[in-house]
Amino acid sequence: MRVIVIGGVAGGMSAATRLRRLDESAEIVVLEQGSYVSYANCGLPYYVGGEIEDRAELLLHTPESLTARFRLDVRTQHEAIAVDRAARRVEVMDHRSGVLVELEYDVLVLAAGASANPLSAADIPVHTLRTVDDVDAIDALLPRDGSATALVVGGGYIGIEATENLVRRGVPTTLVHRGPHVLATLDPELAVLVEAELRANGVELRTSTEIESVDRGEVRLSDGELLRPRLIVNASGATPNTGLARAAGLRLGANGGIAVDAQNRTSDPHVYAVGDGVEKIGLDGEDALVAMAGLANRHGRTAADVIAGRPERNSPALGTTVVRVFGLTAASLGWSEGRLQRAGRPYRAVHTHPMSHAAYFPGAERMALKLLIDPADDAILGAQAVGGAGVDKRIDVLAVAMAGGITASGLARLELAYAPQYGQAKDPINQLGYVADNVRTGTTATVQWHELPALQRDGAAVVDVRSDAERASGAIPGALGIPLDELRERLDELPDGPVVVYCQVGQRGHTAARLLVQHGVDARNLDGGYRTWSAGRAAELAASETMEAR
Amino acid sequence: MRVIVIGGVAGGMSAATRLRRLDESAEIVVLEQGSYVSYANCGLPYYVGGEIEDRAELLLHTPESLTARFRLDVRTQHEAIAVDRAARRVEVMDHRSGVLVELEYDVLVLAAGASANPLSAADIPVHTLRTVDDVDAIDALLPRDGSATALVVGGGYIGIEATENLVRRGVPTTLVHRGPHVLATLDPELAVLVEAELRANGVELRTSTEIESVDRGEVRLSDGELLRPRLIVNASGATPNTGLARAAGLRLGANGGIAVDAQNRTSDPHVYAVGDGVEKIGLDGEDALVAMAGLANRHGRTAADVIAGRPERNSPALGTTVVRVFGLTAASLGWSEGRLQRAGRPYRAVHTHPMSHAAYFPGAERMALKLLIDPADDAILGAQAVGGAGVDKRIDVLAVAMAGGITASGLARLELAYAPQYGQAKDPINQLGYVADNVRTGTTATVQWHELPALQRDGAAVVDVRSDAERASGAIPGALGIPLDELRERLDELPDGPVVVYCQVGQRGHTAARLLVQHGVDARNLDGGYRTWSAGRAAELAASETMEAR
Repeated sequence: MRVIVIGGVAGGMSAATRLRRLDESAEIVVLEQGSYVSYANCGLPYYVGGEIEDRAELLLHTPESLTARFRLDVRTQHEAIAVDRAARRVEVMDHRSGVLVELEYDVLVLAAGASANPLSAADIPVHTLRTVDDVDAIDALLPRDGSATALVVGGGYIGIEATENLVRRGVPTTLVHRGPHVLATLDPELAVLVEAELRANGVELRTSTEIESVDRGEVRLSDGELLRPRLIVNASGATPNTGLARAAGLRLGANGGIAVDAQNRTSDPHVYAVGDGVEKIGLDGEDALVAMAGLANRHGRTAADVIAGRPERNSPALGTTVVRVFGLTAASLGWSEGRLQRAGRPYRAVHTHPMSHAAYFPGAERMALKLLIDPADDAILGAQAVGGAGVDKRIDVLAVAMAGGITASGLARLELAYAPQYGQAKDPINQLGYVADNVRTGTTATVQWHELPALQRDGAAVVDVRSDAERASGAIPGALGIPLDELRERLDELPDGPVVVYCQVGQRGHTAARLLVQHGVDARNLDGGYRTWSAGRAAELAASETMEAR
Repeated sequence: MRVIVIGGVAGGMSAATRLRRLDESAEIVVLEQGSYVSYANCGLPYYVGGEIEDRAELLLHTPESLTARFRLDVRTQHEAIAVDRAARRVEVMDHRSGVLVELEYDVLVLAAGASANPLSAADIPVHTLRTVDDVDAIDALLPRDGSATALVVGGGYIGIEATENLVRRGVPTTLVHRGPHVLATLDPELAVLVEAELRANGVELRTSTEIESVDRGEVRLSDGELLRPRLIVNASGATPNTGLARAAGLRLGANGGIAVDAQNRTSDPHVYAVGDGVEKIGLDGEDALVAMAGLANRHGRTAADVIAGRPERNSPALGTTVVRVFGLTAASLGWSEGRLQRAGRPYRAVHTHPMSHAAYFPGAERMALKLLIDPADDAILGAQAVGGAGVDKRIDVLAVAMAGGITASGLARLELAYAPQYGQAKDPINQLGYVADNVRTGTTATVQWHELPALQRDGAAVVDVRSDAERASGAIPGALGIPLDELRERLDELPDGPVVVYCQVGQRGHTAARLLVQHGVDARNLDGGYRTWSAGRAAELAASETMEAR
C-alpha cells in the first residue's frame, strides 16, 4: 500500500507517523511544499520576539530524522499540482529540480492547511506568521533598536501573538482590528481586559479600524491615521487550501473547507483530509472551520487509524483556545454569549472574579471567569477566562466538564486538588458551580451588566453594598450606598419597588440579595458585580467612541 | 429555629454562613473551643516558614465580622461538653468565664474536626500544626538562626508541609516516617521523587523509622540514631473527634468517624455532622475517612441546604490531593496501585513523563504521570503526578474526567487549551489517553517496572533503544543497546524469544515495539521507560536498605 500525505506539519505528520506505527509495510510519502517539515508553528512568533533564542528549537524533525525513525519518504519543496482520482495519481512539482513527477497512491491524505487571506500593500512588505520562511523574513526586516515600526492587521490569536512579540523585539507596533473588540471568541467585557493589557504594554491598538489605502509606503487607516511601517504582518484570518481538492472534484463544506466525515474521509473513500483545510464537526453538530494545532494532530491520528482499519471517530470540536497576552492569559471554549445571541439560543451567563489560589498565600491573582449555561438542562455551553495564574487550568477543567456532560451546578461538587498555592478550598470552579446553582434554583436572581440600564429605566433602584472606601474609587451612577454589614439595620432606607444590589465581584451581592428577598424586597444581584459592570461599560464606550471617530 | 454548630472552622462555618443565606430568620449559634474561628488552617505551616509574613492573613473572620455580616452568634473558647439528644440540649463550658451553660437546639451540626494522634515525649515540647495556637507555640520555640533542630513525625501531607517550612525557617529538620515511603497516596516510584527533593533540600529523611524512646531530651530512633530536637512536630495522623457523638449515642462508622448519610445526617435526624470527624462515601462506595478542607466546606454547605429543605446530596469522594514539596508539586486522586493490589482489584497502569508545555518554549518542566485504569471498562480509577509546572492542572483535569465518566482512552480526545506556554498540541493528558488506548487495543503490550525481573528470569531479552549517550548515563543491567533509528537494520542482532524494549520515557519504546511486533518479534514496551524503572528500583532499594539497617 502506498499512502501519499500532502503537507508535512501538524496533521500530515501525525497521520504519517501514526500510520507507520500501525503499519510497518506501507510505503508512506510525505510531500511538503515548503522547505521544512514538522516545525513548531505555534512557536514561530516567540522566535521573532526572542523568547525562543535558538532557531533550531523550531525545527522538531528533519526529513532525514523522519526517514531514520519512521521510514517516511519525506520530500520538501515538493508541491502537489493536481490529483487524478480516477487514476489515483498525484502530479508533483519538485521545485528544487524543476521536474514534474507523477506518483500513484492507494490512499491520499490531504493536510495542506490554510493560507492567510491576501493583503497587498504597495511598497510595504507583507508577511504572515505561518512558516519558518515568514519568520526569517521578519527577522531580517525589523531591527531590534526600535528604528522601524510595524503594523499588525488582525486582532485574533495570531495577530496578538505577533504584536506581543514585535513589542518584545523593541518594534513600535500598531495593531489594527476590524471588529469592535480583539479576540472574537471572547465577549466584550472580557476582551476589554485584553485590550487594556495590550495598551498598557505600549501597543497602539485601533479597533473597528481597517487599512483604507496604501500609497508610496504610507498606510492610511479608516480612522484617518497615517503610518509608515517597515513591515505589515498579515494576521487577518486564513482560508483553507482547497485548490487541489476542488480541482479534483472533492466535496467542500458550507464554510469553504474540505468536507470530511467523523473519520476524516472525504467524498472519495481513497482520500482523507485533516487539519486547518478541513471542516470539523462544530459545537452545534454542524460543520465549522476550527483551526487548531491540537485538532490537526488528533485528526491526523484518526485518519491513520481509519486507514489502518480501526474504528476511530472524532468528537465535535469545542474550540478550546488559550493565548498569552503579555502578563495575562486569555482562554475560552465553546459558545460565547455573542454567538448564542446571534443564534437566538437561550442561555444563562455567570461572571465571577476569583483569586487563582488562596488569597492569603503570596502570588494569588484575580481572574475574570464567565460561564454560559443552557437553561433547559443546566449544560455547560461555553466559558471564558482572562487573568494571570491558573486561567489555563480553569478553562481545561471546564472543557473536560463540558465533554464529560457535567452540569453547571455539578461544578460545585468537583473535587479539585487543593493546597493554598494551587487553588482554594472552594475552588474558582466550585464557586462557578455555586453561583450557577443559586441561579438555577432561583435562590438568587441575577442581572447581567447589559441589562441594568433597562431595569433602571423601569424604576429599579441600584444599591451598592460595598464599603465606603470601595465606593469612593468608582461606582454605578445613581446607586444608593449601604454597606452589606449595615444592611439589616438600614432596610428602611431602601425605596419601594425592585432593587438591584451589587458589590465588587458578586459574592456580597448574593448575600445581600438573599437577605433582602427574605425581608420581602424584590432584589436581584448584579452578576459579576462592579468589576463585570465596569468592564462591560468600558467595552461599550470603546466601541461607541471608535464608531463616532469614523 | 435555633441551629447550633459545634466547630467554627471550615465545615462548621460553611454550614453556618450558607444557612444564613438560605434562612434569615434562624437563630444560628457557633461554638468554637479554640480562640479563633474561620482561620486559614491550610496556611498555618507557611506562617511558620515565613512565606506568609503577616499573621493577620491567617484570620479570615472574627466573631464580630461574622455577626455583622451573617448575624451569627459566634462564641469562641466555648466547649461543648455533652449533648442531650432527647432534650435537644447542649451543655457548654465557657472557658473564659468558667461558667457552664445549657443551650437548646432544633438542629445540631457537629463539625469538631479531628485531633492529632497523641505523641508524648518526655522533656521535649510536642506540637501539632492544626491551630493558630500551635503556630504561635512553634514560632516562639524555634529561632531562625539554625541553633535549634526539629523532628517531624509523619511523612504525610501535613508532615511534609511542616518539614518544608521548618527548613525554610532555617531549622535543621529530621523527618521520620513509619512507612517505607512518604505520602501514602503515591506509589513508591512516584514517592521516591518526593523523597529525593526533600533530601536535596537538606531534610534528614528517615523512612521505615519510628521513635523508639525519649529520655531527658534525647530521642532514640528505631534505626539507632540519637537526636536532641528543640521541638517535635506531631504529624503522625489524626483521629476524628467523636467523643461528643459517641457519648450521645450517635452511630459511628467502621473507620471510627461519625456515620452520616449522603446529606450529612447522622443517626439522629436532628443532628448533622461534617468535616474531618465524619466518614465520607469513599471510592468504592464504602465509608472512608477522607480529611480534606474542600470536602469539609462542601459538606458544610450540603448540611445547610438539607436543613433548609433542599435536596442536596454528596458525591463519593475521590480524595484529590496536592502538596508542594520545595520545587516540586505532588498530587494524586482515587486509587493507587498499592491500594488496588491490596483490594485484589484488577487494573492497568500507565506511566508517562511529559513536558509541562511545549519543549521548545522556555520553562518547560518534565513531570511523572501515572494513570490507573479499570481493564473491564477502561474507566479511570486513579492518577498520580509529581513534577514542576502544570502538575496541579493535570490532576484536576483527571479528577474531572473521572467524575465525568470519561474513559482512559477518551482522554486522547479531550480538547485542552493549547499554546506553547501552557501545554502541548498533544497535551500530556492526551498522551496518557494515547498510551492507554494503545494498551487497551493491544496495539502495544506494556510491562511494568516491577514485572521486569520475573520476565528476565523467564528468558526475556531487554533491548535499550535509546541513543548511546543516553545509555552511557545509566541503563538496565544486561540490556542490549540498539538505538531506535538503527533498529530496522539491526533486527538480526536480536535474540530469539520474547523481548522487552525500553527508551527514556516510553515513547520511542512504543515505536520500537510496534516495529518489532510487525517483524514477528514478541515485543513489549517497558511502561514509562528508564525513568519509571529507575525510580521504581530506587524506591525498592531505599525500602530494602532501611529494612536491613534495622
